[in-house]
Amino acid sequence: MISYSEQYRKALLEDVIPFWEMNSPDPVYGGYFTCLDREGKVYDTDKFVWLQGRQAWTFSMLFNQVEKNPKWLSLAKDGVDFLKKYGRDKKGNFYFSLTREGKPLVQPYNIFSDCFAAMAFGQYGLATQDEKVLNLAKNTFENILSRKSNPKGKYAKSYPGTRPLKNFSLPMILSNLCLELEPLLDKELVEQTIDECIHEVMEVFRDKETGLIYENVMPDGSLCDSFEGRLINPGHGIEAMWFMMDIAHRRNNQHLMDQAIQSVVSILEYGWDTQYGGIFYFMDAKGKPPLSLEWDQKLWWVHLETLVALAKAYRFTKNPELLKLFEKVHTYSWEHFADPESGEWFGYLNRQGEVLLPLIGGKWKGCFHVPRGLYQVWKALEE
Amino acid sequence: MISYSEQYRKALLEDVIPFWEMNSPDPVYGGYFTCLDREGKVYDTDKFVWLQGRQAWTFSMLFNQVEKNPKWLSLAKDGVDFLKKYGRDKKGNFYFSLTREGKPLVQPYNIFSDCFAAMAFGQYGLATQDEKVLNLAKNTFENILSRKSNPKGKYAKSYPGTRPLKNFSLPMILSNLCLELEPLLDKELVEQTIDECIHEVMEVFRDKETGLIYENVMPDGSLCDSFEGRLINPGHGIEAMWFMMDIAHRRNNQHLMDQAIQSVVSILEYGWDTQYGGIFYFMDAKGKPPLSLEWDQKLWWVHLETLVALAKAYRFTKNPELLKLFEKVHTYSWEHFADPESGEWFGYLNRQGEVLLPLIGGKWKGCFHVPRGLYQVWKALEE
Repeated sequence: MISYSEQYRKALLEDVIPFWEMNSPDPVYGGYFTCLDREGKVYDTDKFVWLQGRQAWTFSMLFNQVEKNPKWLSLAKDGVDFLKKYGRDKKGNFYFSLTREGKPLVQPYNIFSDCFAAMAFGQYGLATQDEKVLNLAKNTFENILSRKSNPKGKYAKSYPGTRPLKNFSLPMILSNLCLELEPLLDKELVEQTIDECIHEVMEVFRDKETGLIYENVMPDGSLCDSFEGRLINPGHGIEAMWFMMDIAHRRNNQHLMDQAIQSVVSILEYGWDTQYGGIFYFMDAKGKPPLSLEWDQKLWWVHLETLVALAKAYRFTKNPELLKLFEKVHTYSWEHFADPESGEWFGYLNRQGEVLLPLIGGKWKGCFHVPRGLYQVWKALEE
Repeated sequence: MISYSEQYRKALLEDVIPFWEMNSPDPVYGGYFTCLDREGKVYDTDKFVWLQGRQAWTFSMLFNQVEKNPKWLSLAKDGVDFLKKYGRDKKGNFYFSLTREGKPLVQPYNIFSDCFAAMAFGQYGLATQDEKVLNLAKNTFENILSRKSNPKGKYAKSYPGTRPLKNFSLPMILSNLCLELEPLLDKELVEQTIDECIHEVMEVFRDKETGLIYENVMPDGSLCDSFEGRLINPGHGIEAMWFMMDIAHRRNNQHLMDQAIQSVVSILEYGWDTQYGGIFYFMDAKGKPPLSLEWDQKLWWVHLETLVALAKAYRFTKNPELLKLFEKVHTYSWEHFADPESGEWFGYLNRQGEVLLPLIGGKWKGCFHVPRGLYQVWKALEE
C-alpha cells in the first residue's frame, strides 16, 4: 500500500502540481489558463468558471492539507480574486465562462459554476481566515440552495410538467459541498443537508436492486423509459459513492458505508469495457443506443474518481477484493492516461484507449480531478 | 453514370422508403417513430419535431417529384397533422420535442424545428393544394424571418455583446428553404432572401483563401480565435455548397457555380481522414483540439450531402476529377454506412469506420438525409 500511496504522492507533488504552477497562471489578467497542450502551451485563453473555481480550490486545499506553501496560497488567490472581480452577475449568480480579460461570455445558466466558486471561497477562506471571502462562500452556498428547485432558471428548456425529471448532479455535489463548507455553516443546516443528500442519492437515484445510479428519475424516484431516464454515467455514480463513504465515515454509519461500497463494485462491473478495458462514459440502462456519441470514450475523471472510491473502500474494509479492483483500474489508468511528457494526464481516450485529443487541459479538464484524485488515493492508502 | 443513378434510385425506392413506410408510422397517435433499430423495432417513442417535419417533407417530395403514390401522401399527412395539432406553442413557435402522444417536452429554443415544419407544410401544400396548409407554410416562414436576429430567444446563453458571433446554420438553411417555398412566396421576397443568403454564405462565412466555411464568424465576417470561431463542420459546409449550386443553376450564375464547386473540393480535401477514410465531423481551423468529443466520428449525413454535392458538381461541369471524388466517397459510404439487414444506413461510425451505435433512426437521424441524398444523386447522374 505504501508504494501505491507514495506513487500518488510523488505524481501529485512532483509532476502534476508543477505543471499547473508553471503553465496555468495568467500574469496579465489574473485567473488561470486551462487550455494547455502537452508542452504547457496555451492554445485558447477563455476562462471557464468551473475550472477557475476548481483550481483555486485545489491550491487552497493543498495549502490547508499538505503544506503551508505560500506559493500555493498565492496561486489560489489569483483565482479567487479573478472570480470575485469578474465571476458574478448583479444577482450574485456565477457566469459559465469569461474572456481572458474577465468579460462575461456565457450566462449563469449552470449552477455548478456557483458550486465550484463556493468550494474555492470556502477552502481559501479557511486558509486565510479572510472574513469577506468566508462570507462570500456562505452567501454563494445559500444562493445555490435558493436556486435548487430551478437551477437553470429561464434557460431551462424542458416544458414544465410533461416529464418532470429530477437530475442527480445537484444532490450529489451538495453532499460534497456541505462537508467542504461545514466550518462556515450552521450545524443544523449541515446535518439537515447531509440527511437530504443521503436520502436523495441512496434512496431516490440509486436503484436498490442493481446498485446503479440513474442520472434522472421521476419526482417519486420511479424510473422513466426515455433517453434521459435510462441514462447511466458510471463515473458520476462512483464519484458520488465516495462522497457517501466520507459521510458514512464521519457519521460512523456502517450501513451507509456498506451500501456505498456495494454500489461502487456494481457500477464498476456494469461500466467496465470487457473488450478494451476502461470504464465507459455513458450507458443506457436498458442497453438501447445512448444519446451521446461519446458514450464509449474513456475519460480521465471517471477513472480517477473510481480510483479514489476503491482506495477508500479498501481503506475502510481492508477487503482484498477491493484492492484487486483498485489494481485493475490503477493499471489501466496509468498505462493509458498518464502522459510522461507533461507529467499530467490525458483527458480523453477513444474506446480503444488511444489518445483522442492531445490536450492536458481544456474547457472541462483543469487542475482538479487529477490532483484531487491523487491526493485522495495517497491519503487513503497511507493509513 | 446510369449505373450509379440506378443504384441510388433502387436503394431509395426498394430499400430505404419501404423501411420507413413499414416501421415508422405511429398507428395510435399519428406522426412518426424515428428511434428504430436494424429490425425496424421502436426503441424509444419520443417525437422530435425536426424529424417529424423532415419525414413529412420527404414523403410529400416523393409524391410531388417521383410518383403520385397515395400511400406517400397519406404518410405525409400523418406527420403534417401531428405537427399542426401538437407542434406549436401559442405564439406559433415549434417545440423541439414531444411525447408520443404529442405533449410538449422541450421548448421552442431551436428555430430549425420551425424550418423543417415549414418545409413539410410547403411540400405537402403543393401536393394537396390545401389552402390552410399553404398558409401555415407561409406564416411559419415569416415567423422564422422575424426571429432571425435572435433565433434562440430567451434560451440564448451567450452574454450580449462580448463576442457577438453569427452562426452559419440559419443563412444556410434559408438558402434551401426559400427555394422550397418559392411557389408560395412573394417573388421579390424570394429574390431578396436568395441575394442575402448568397452574400452571407459565400462572402461572410466562406473563407476566400481556403474555400472553407466557418461555422461562426464576427458580425463583419472576420475570424475569431476561440473554440466556436475556429470550428469547421465539413459536412455542413459541403451541404451548403450544393444549395448554392442549385441557386447558381437557377440564376445561371457561372461564377457562383465555380466558387461553390471549388469550395466542395477544398472542404472535402481538408475534411478527409487520410488514415481511415471518411470525412471528419468537426475540425479546428487552427488544428487545435476541437471541443466536441465526437469530432473524429463519421456521420451518415456528412457523406450523403457530399455525394449530392459531388454528383451535382459533376453534372454541371462533366469534369472527370469530380467524378473520381464522387467515386471515392461513394465507395467509402456504401462499404461502411449501408446496412444490408435493414436496407437503410447506419448513422454513426467511429473514426475507424466501425458502427458506433447500431441504430437506423434516433433523435437526430430520421427519414431525411438518406432518402433526399439518394434522390438527389439519382437525379443528378440521370441527366
